[in-house]
Amino acid sequence: MRPRGTLPATLPYGLAVNETSTKPYLLRALYEWCVDNGFTPYLSVVVDAATRVPPEYVRNGEIVLNIGPLAANRLKMTNESIDFSARFGGAARELSIPVAQVAALYARENGHGMSFEIDRTKTPLEASGQAAAQPSAPPEPPAPAPGGGKPTLRVIK
Amino acid sequence: MRPRGTLPATLPYGLAVNETSTKPYLLRALYEWCVDNGFTPYLSVVVDAATRVPPEYVRNGEIVLNIGPLAANRLKMTNESIDFSARFGGAARELSIPVAQVAALYARENGHGMSFEIDRTKTPLEASGQAAAQPSAPPEPPAPAPGGGKPTLRVIK
Repeated sequence: MRPRGTLPATLPYGLAVNETSTKPYLLRALYEWCVDNGFTPYLSVVVDAATRVPPEYVRNGEIVLNIGPLAANRLKMTNESIDFSARFGGAARELSIPVAQVAALYARENGHGMSFEIDRTKTPLEASGQAAAQPSAPPEPPAPAPGGGKPTLRVIK
Repeated sequence: MRPRGTLPATLPYGLAVNETSTKPYLLRALYEWCVDNGFTPYLSVVVDAATRVPPEYVRNGEIVLNIGPLAANRLKMTNESIDFSARFGGAARELSIPVAQVAALYARENGHGMSFEIDRTKTPLEASGQAAAQPSAPPEPPAPAPGGGKPTLRVIK
């Protein structure tokens, strides 16, 4: 096998007006792939001010969430955001993640999936006045599972 | 923006037994993205002995096909193959492309999409005894449209 040549490294979601990013489509596809194969879909998120997640579970401006059917209720994956409710420390919370803040979606069990570039120059959670408190019981491991926790696909640029 | 670090460059579809590749899921997602945005989905195929396409339109072992709703009839995108019928020089032909032979799916209009590595060590069309005749009227341009014909996403490895 060999690379198929060098392709222009322009962002596919450096969008023209009214053009929708491929990203939400790819996220839905990867979620479906995970579920069809019995894998647990993990969503890695770079938290910004528009991201609604429990701040006490945010680490270094990031959070990894299990969005599988057993963990995420009323999951909606639109072209703009991923919304669901989940239990944290026994309490139900409503979460909303802008598609633009999704850094990766991958299977916990083997790390297969895809990662995306995030514009980290935007206001991070830490700079928005919200504190990242110590969690009592993280709902998901802060890092991917050993032996395969990193996505094995990469989006260029 | 900066890359999100170096990720292991192992094939996501260097599969464990019974694990389905993400590739057919991503292809369906990209097709849906194209159609939703009014783009023309172009499928770039590395032809092998299991690929059923009009051989007279194959160039250097490859063919680019328009799989948009106006060009491809009865399109089926399963986890194993992409099947449809299309007219070539006025005659309807049945096509079947193994998912493994898909090199790219992208929008004709801007080149956005995704490319995939293909194992080119397998028997190419040229070596299988089929002749690549001169076409009388290629149904699609042999190369992507100017000004954006190359996919702008790339799958590593």
